[in-house]
Amino acid sequence: MSDENWKEICAKKRQSLFDSIPKEWVIPHLSIQKHSNVMNVPASSGILSQKQLDITEESDVDVILEKLRTAEWTSVEVTTAFYKRAVVAHQTVNCLTEIFVDKALKRAKELDDMLSRTGKVVGPLHGLPISLKDQFTMKGLETVMGHAGWIGEEAEEDCALVTILYECGAVPFTRTNVPQTLMWGETHNNVFGRSLNPYNRSLTPGGSSGGEGALVAMKGSPLGVGTDIGGSLRIPSAFCGLYTLRPSYSRLPYYGAANALMGQESISSVLGPMANSLSSVLTFTKAIISARPWRYDPLAIRKAWSEEEWDLSEHGGVGSQLCFAIMWDNGVVKPHPPLIRAMTMVKKALEHAGHRVVDWEPHRHLEIYKNAETIFVADGGHDYLTECAKSGEPLITTMVPSEEEDIAEGYEYHAPTPYVKMLVGEPKHHEAYELWRLHEEKLRLRKSHLDHWARTADKTGTGRPVDAIISPAVAYTAVPHGLNTDSFYTTLCNALDYATSTFPVTFVDPHVDVPVEPHDFYNHEDESIYRLYKTDIFTGCPVGLQLIGKTLEEEAVLRMTSIVDGALKKWKLEIKD
Amino acid sequence: MSDENWKEICAKKRQSLFDSIPKEWVIPHLSIQKHSNVMNVPASSGILSQKQLDITEESDVDVILEKLRTAEWTSVEVTTAFYKRAVVAHQTVNCLTEIFVDKALKRAKELDDMLSRTGKVVGPLHGLPISLKDQFTMKGLETVMGHAGWIGEEAEEDCALVTILYECGAVPFTRTNVPQTLMWGETHNNVFGRSLNPYNRSLTPGGSSGGEGALVAMKGSPLGVGTDIGGSLRIPSAFCGLYTLRPSYSRLPYYGAANALMGQESISSVLGPMANSLSSVLTFTKAIISARPWRYDPLAIRKAWSEEEWDLSEHGGVGSQLCFAIMWDNGVVKPHPPLIRAMTMVKKALEHAGHRVVDWEPHRHLEIYKNAETIFVADGGHDYLTECAKSGEPLITTMVPSEEEDIAEGYEYHAPTPYVKMLVGEPKHHEAYELWRLHEEKLRLRKSHLDHWARTADKTGTGRPVDAIISPAVAYTAVPHGLNTDSFYTTLCNALDYATSTFPVTFVDPHVDVPVEPHDFYNHEDESIYRLYKTDIFTGCPVGLQLIGKTLEEEAVLRMTSIVDGALKKWKLEIKD
Repeated sequence: MSDENWKEICAKKRQSLFDSIPKEWVIPHLSIQKHSNVMNVPASSGILSQKQLDITEESDVDVILEKLRTAEWTSVEVTTAFYKRAVVAHQTVNCLTEIFVDKALKRAKELDDMLSRTGKVVGPLHGLPISLKDQFTMKGLETVMGHAGWIGEEAEEDCALVTILYECGAVPFTRTNVPQTLMWGETHNNVFGRSLNPYNRSLTPGGSSGGEGALVAMKGSPLGVGTDIGGSLRIPSAFCGLYTLRPSYSRLPYYGAANALMGQESISSVLGPMANSLSSVLTFTKAIISARPWRYDPLAIRKAWSEEEWDLSEHGGVGSQLCFAIMWDNGVVKPHPPLIRAMTMVKKALEHAGHRVVDWEPHRHLEIYKNAETIFVADGGHDYLTECAKSGEPLITTMVPSEEEDIAEGYEYHAPTPYVKMLVGEPKHHEAYELWRLHEEKLRLRKSHLDHWARTADKTGTGRPVDAIISPAVAYTAVPHGLNTDSFYTTLCNALDYATSTFPVTFVDPHVDVPVEPHDFYNHEDESIYRLYKTDIFTGCPVGLQLIGKTLEEEAVLRMTSIVDGALKKWKLEIKD
Repeated sequence: MSDENWKEICAKKRQSLFDSIPKEWVIPHLSIQKHSNVMNVPASSGILSQKQLDITEESDVDVILEKLRTAEWTSVEVTTAFYKRAVVAHQTVNCLTEIFVDKALKRAKELDDMLSRTGKVVGPLHGLPISLKDQFTMKGLETVMGHAGWIGEEAEEDCALVTILYECGAVPFTRTNVPQTLMWGETHNNVFGRSLNPYNRSLTPGGSSGGEGALVAMKGSPLGVGTDIGGSLRIPSAFCGLYTLRPSYSRLPYYGAANALMGQESISSVLGPMANSLSSVLTFTKAIISARPWRYDPLAIRKAWSEEEWDLSEHGGVGSQLCFAIMWDNGVVKPHPPLIRAMTMVKKALEHAGHRVVDWEPHRHLEIYKNAETIFVADGGHDYLTECAKSGEPLITTMVPSEEEDIAEGYEYHAPTPYVKMLVGEPKHHEAYELWRLHEEKLRLRKSHLDHWARTADKTGTGRPVDAIISPAVAYTAVPHGLNTDSFYTTLCNALDYATSTFPVTFVDPHVDVPVEPHDFYNHEDESIYRLYKTDIFTGCPVGLQLIGKTLEEEAVLRMTSIVDGALKKWKLEIKD
């Protein structure tokens, strides 16, 4: 395909996406400079009625589901409301890739009819619109996943997740933007362009589930599904103020979803929910697991939702004093001041709630980082180049905006060479035997880290090892486009396959989150990230943290996150002021 | 290392193994020709007392454990009895690799003392001697695993399984022979030589857990632990008349065990129990899972033993009519007459018990076979050559005995080129990207097979898909050494990661299991295997079958196996005669 061709095909796809927006939902273009924060646009756009605003402002899908179950709201009403808001959001932050209003409303109508005819819901997610990252194939729709060469290929089947969402009564209603190759913590590709952070459009919403992050933050979807192989759920959740769960490999059904690095089974991408409340994350996770996903996905782990584990059976039982460890700094990149403040808040809140908090000692991080990132490029980047070659589009090698883009806020882009590139070196083809050596090393590192964790039993005072680790999801809050170069706080958990949540804690406050004196830098990226911290850029940005549990401990991770989240909310009310 | 050196080192190791046998347990050499069936030697050897014979004749570890719990038998008594019998067995079938009587008895004594002091057992396997395949490292002992180059290396730590066995109160008491590289369905290596089948020493006990198979069949151990990557638990169990469970990947803790193809994570070796009763297999499996192996093995799946699944929650619940499918023939190698008879017996027994039986339609077997076997040699055999190079010993390329060996019964060895070698071609180095393509193909094949299974719901009459598949574990019973060339009935389950048991059904009876007319051969190996069938060779050999469930369905597979086993025993009593 010639150079002209791929550009033309991408332009056509963008036009067709725009054409799929009902004309009455189109809003005027908002220039970045005048409207860096667009969180208020849905309310002020005039596109949504008051009832539609009320519906979409509801952050808890359990409330929405209850109103759907009792027919107080119809699925057509709820889907229409979120669809309008999604389309408004899209026009401000460029978050969508597929818009199919008729198909979604037809499905919603069928669900409404079934409920009114039988008096029964189809499943636990009856009538709920759910947005999907542009990997989750739906029969008859394209799944472009940011590749020009994939435009025009319609899926012949629904992926396992979509099959189960239908069984559960959900309404998959739109799909969301990703970076080319998926292996970036930002969201930009040659087909759909760049997604922006609704809190400040000069900043990235993160990635690779960045379209979801921006959309859900603007309440254009009550619940989105993203994926995570190095932080792709947690980075956008942290940057956009959301809750998410990165489950362990294959707890949730990935089969049939489009992906990069297909066949790379060693550090698997996983899917998870992103939402404005933890209860939404919980409801989704329980619904999907309870649908027995192993019927559709040969890799999905046959493990029912465990009420025992939800009741913290391996953590002394509900109501026990827990011991959390805070990882203040991973020794690779020092977190920015708002992250330190967020961890301090969590520490105080947990202690106020009667739990114990100790410091977490990082363990062999550079080895784990290097091993994981070397596995990701063990094909010498051949997978990426193969997909690009299908259209002739270039492989994107930086997320720094080009001069043509209307998103620069006036600061200079001195993006450092990502430290990970220096750690791994130039990607090269590995032979199977060499790859197996990397796998073997990874297993030994996982064992070493597990044993390190077990040894914390000496200092918790609970008789158990540390129950969970609290750490930044990223060392910083949302950064200017092109500058999110480090993702090791998140990748650690992918490499070790620890079940991990992300939860919002606070917002950057320029009065308290003031820059600090330089420290001894761990590496050039650490220095570069230190220098990036200027409160005028970050003011008002969400600050999120991770809660890290052990492998396949989704139930306990969600329960412990609810304990932390609850303690934090209580502490804010009772103590802070 | 020079040629002379590795031979000398192997001879020394063999001598030291012999020297570790207490002198009063040594029996005279029995020539193969005069003593092809040695099952009676332990009773006739005069080495064991009547009480020791009584102890070791008990096939159900639950009975032994109960007598240990109530101090009717001491662990020292039980361990001594099985150790004597193991050593007698070893002298007839060459099944052991490490003999450490003092260490085992010291452990047994400690357990007896603890019980008498506290009145409490240490764990669910209190006092039970358990034999281990020569992969399960124990601190301070060598793990040779059939490699000359590994002699002399003492383990610094117990593997995860051994750690848990100690926690459970067991007495790991001996280790058992394997083939070089582990990737054979027989058991022979340059260090320890060849293990023999106690029913007929001219035949192989199978492999790679062949030392265990021979030992447990002779009741030299109440329970052995083997491993399985292509049939290595099920082949020796079928050839030696035992029960086993091949669990799905990582249900039981493999970490720290020595292995071949380390880092090959795509089709994982698993460990499982081998015993003379199904209840023993169940007790071991429950004990290990209940010990929460994920504390020690980062890959071990955090899934508690599920009583719901044991009660067949996904199969209509206990007491429901089940529908089994019989795979009479996999379309690659047609089973010998005794296997067909065994399947017919099971069909009649199940129908007599009120269950349904349908035929199983094989699905894409050649593709699955080729894919799996290509993954196993994706390093071009480099792993095997690397281990051999450590000592200079040659890589073993056939299991056909050399002329020096005292095991030929007089028939000619016309071993065919294994069909799998023609299917896969010469092993070659694959690049990571090519290996990932094989992984991707494997995933699609697994999905295709899962969907094929789901579609059987149309013909079961239960409203569910087929509950389990019954098939040969191997197309034949134990064969002369060197002639076990096909392992696809078993490898199918490794490639698809289906939880699978093996159970004994009957013995070859020359009066009924008569040769049949030739069929249209699927391939040259099928023909060669057809021609091999002569009842005079196979008379009296155990005939075993597999029960195949779905991935991570260990509980249901064990329960359904107990249903089949029970139906068969009842049918034999009530109907057959």
